[in-house]
Amino acid sequence: MFQSGDTIAAISTPSGPGAIGVIRLSGPQALSLASEALGIDLQARAANTLHFGRFKIDGKVLDEVVTGIFKAPHSYTGEDIAEVSFHGSPFILSSALQHLLASGARMAEPGEFTQRAFLNGKLDLSQAEAVTDLIASESQAEHNLAMHQMRGGFSKEIQRLREELIHFASLIELELDFSEEDVEFANRNELRGLVEKIHGFVGQLIESFRFGNAVKNGVPVAIIGKPNAGKSTLLNALLNEEKAIVSDIAGTTRDAIEDETIINGIRFRFIDTAGIRDTEDVVEAMGVKRSLEKMKSASIVLLLHDISDSAEAMAANRKSLENDLSQTNASIISVMNKSDLGGSPDMDVDLQLSAKTGDGLSGLKQKLVDAIESGKVQAGDVIVTNTRHLQALNATRESLERTLEGLSNEVSSDLVAMDIRQALHHLGSITGEITTDDLLGNIFSRFCIGK
Amino acid sequence: MFQSGDTIAAISTPSGPGAIGVIRLSGPQALSLASEALGIDLQARAANTLHFGRFKIDGKVLDEVVTGIFKAPHSYTGEDIAEVSFHGSPFILSSALQHLLASGARMAEPGEFTQRAFLNGKLDLSQAEAVTDLIASESQAEHNLAMHQMRGGFSKEIQRLREELIHFASLIELELDFSEEDVEFANRNELRGLVEKIHGFVGQLIESFRFGNAVKNGVPVAIIGKPNAGKSTLLNALLNEEKAIVSDIAGTTRDAIEDETIINGIRFRFIDTAGIRDTEDVVEAMGVKRSLEKMKSASIVLLLHDISDSAEAMAANRKSLENDLSQTNASIISVMNKSDLGGSPDMDVDLQLSAKTGDGLSGLKQKLVDAIESGKVQAGDVIVTNTRHLQALNATRESLERTLEGLSNEVSSDLVAMDIRQALHHLGSITGEITTDDLLGNIFSRFCIGK
Repeated sequence: MFQSGDTIAAISTPSGPGAIGVIRLSGPQALSLASEALGIDLQARAANTLHFGRFKIDGKVLDEVVTGIFKAPHSYTGEDIAEVSFHGSPFILSSALQHLLASGARMAEPGEFTQRAFLNGKLDLSQAEAVTDLIASESQAEHNLAMHQMRGGFSKEIQRLREELIHFASLIELELDFSEEDVEFANRNELRGLVEKIHGFVGQLIESFRFGNAVKNGVPVAIIGKPNAGKSTLLNALLNEEKAIVSDIAGTTRDAIEDETIINGIRFRFIDTAGIRDTEDVVEAMGVKRSLEKMKSASIVLLLHDISDSAEAMAANRKSLENDLSQTNASIISVMNKSDLGGSPDMDVDLQLSAKTGDGLSGLKQKLVDAIESGKVQAGDVIVTNTRHLQALNATRESLERTLEGLSNEVSSDLVAMDIRQALHHLGSITGEITTDDLLGNIFSRFCIGK
Repeated sequence: MFQSGDTIAAISTPSGPGAIGVIRLSGPQALSLASEALGIDLQARAANTLHFGRFKIDGKVLDEVVTGIFKAPHSYTGEDIAEVSFHGSPFILSSALQHLLASGARMAEPGEFTQRAFLNGKLDLSQAEAVTDLIASESQAEHNLAMHQMRGGFSKEIQRLREELIHFASLIELELDFSEEDVEFANRNELRGLVEKIHGFVGQLIESFRFGNAVKNGVPVAIIGKPNAGKSTLLNALLNEEKAIVSDIAGTTRDAIEDETIINGIRFRFIDTAGIRDTEDVVEAMGVKRSLEKMKSASIVLLLHDISDSAEAMAANRKSLENDLSQTNASIISVMNKSDLGGSPDMDVDLQLSAKTGDGLSGLKQKLVDAIESGKVQAGDVIVTNTRHLQALNATRESLERTLEGLSNEVSSDLVAMDIRQALHHLGSITGEITTDDLLGNIFSRFCIGK
């Protein structure tokens, strides 16, 4: 069990006046420091109880408070914890915190409570990282991913893979002890089968990052089309506000305009772009260049056509984009706009709508949601959302590929063992079995204070 | 005991992401609603205990939470209370609140928890009002006043006066029952003595408002003097920042510049004003007019002189302000500036300093604090800070004066009784013995939600 010598304290509620403000203390002195300020012997009280009291500084009542106590190891951090609920006055909270710091507590670093929870084995590293994602989540989908990870869904899969691999690794290590005798404890075919299986699963996890990252940071959707196809009108209709300037003049939009909205619990980041055409106007030309860049980095491209165009014009338009479209991994949804003008389109598209009247807009929203949900289905329950995890998985995949290559080339056991150890190392860094102080510092510094 | 049929819910922590966010439920269903969401029978658990659990919506885990329970009548509101501590994600908190509202709770009005505490006799009205002052307090002095009032110091005095008066009132009411017989149960001399005593005390309380209000809203200090006396330099020195533009050109400041700083726990609001002189400049003339207005509404006036002026100039300057100074109730502190230029002043002043070098500044700060503390000493422990209380005290004083007048004129018992009843009514409205729904609505609507 990790035992830190010192007791940390922080204001754990958001800043500003409110009904309640909470100061959290964790560590060996948490209860005694609170006891002293309250004039109640909290150490003598049962764990998980609440106590009314007067928080005093130099004998003067600062506030009437309720204090909750938790005792090690049955607490969030695994240490003794006191949580003091004050009236939510910034003056009171800062006075109380200063008093506790003067009495022997230390100001908690960002995320230090959760770091202690990790060090005491209450959470693994990937679960701890999910805590801060959970707090930051703004949509149902983000929340679901963070909650699944915090509750250990992600860690369990990683753990399972790691254990299978450890089994084989230990057999190979055993071979090394008997290296003079040319024995083979680890069946090479079984090992190859397992490594291939893990390699495939790690690949799926890596693939899931595109979905996970999109959900966590908003799914980027680029609206692309020739000038005056109604891109800005569609953006405004999707956002339900007049975000972009709309006019009949082709080439109105030059800067890419972005804004977010949540559809079915998923956050989409729509990017309205300059209409794509050859232009003499220098500013517009810069806009067109940016449009193509935005398209390449988007997860979804809405390719907008104008129903009043001829079949030839549409085909030419599509053809001019072909090269750029081939460079993106985005899902492409082709949309025929201006259905309110009537007529039937001269081109196969995924759907028709009128951005102006809103007709068909709900169909587009459904297609957007489907495009994301299908990515989720492919990846299964376990979705990677964290760049650090993605890097570790990529490193794992490389080590696994080297292992497979080594097995094919029938290299010696010690080389195979080394590659497997590498893979284990990278997998273990995700859940925190393998850590360095730098890594921990880096992760927890992104937390808010008091968590 | 007040029993509201419904259960109220609100987010009680400030908005925005944070480590902890608390939803508070109060009312007959508080425990059952929390039990339902958590899948734990909280009603079966002991009061004042904490319970870890998973807050679920439609079977899906929204968050892992800790819930504190309090049981009627031993709670803040006097009702059953559940306080659920979530991870401080705005998404989680609003989802949970919506779920609780859909399950039968009602969104709490601002201050409704404290209103219930009042209705259940946990706090009187003046104590309840102190809760919101306590949360808003930004300095030690404001905090002290609010805490004293919340702990009942103010109410106790009012209560004591009221009880003495009630004793006499009941004797007079008794006389009315025997009106045919011309008896006198209430000794008129004793009654007059009591009413005079109360009248004097109420007068002191009314006087204390100037101090109380100054502390609560910051003590307004106007810096007054002829052009180029160094008013802006003094403001900057007091605030310890370059707030006002300073130049050698007389008449640099035109708009009144205000800013606050806390000295010895008291919040002072300093007002730098245009230098006072006859001027042709229209804008400057408007500035001079405003300076004089600011001076009249200030609690303290710093009258700044320039050591390089002749005795005649200073006297003339002082004389030109005499009329305006006579119209203010402010304490006046006369200050000789530019002591760094050397020489001895040709005028009696309260202190000398150099705003430029900071020499003597601490002496000025001490004088400012003394001016306020002396006001406090006069008023004793009980300080009126609330405009509503001031109005009630003024109305009480009027009724007491009518009573005294009636006693002098030996009017009939029923008229004396009526005036005393009026005085009792106004006194009672302070602590809430006498209330109307309008009054309560008005008071509690100023609270923050969740309190």
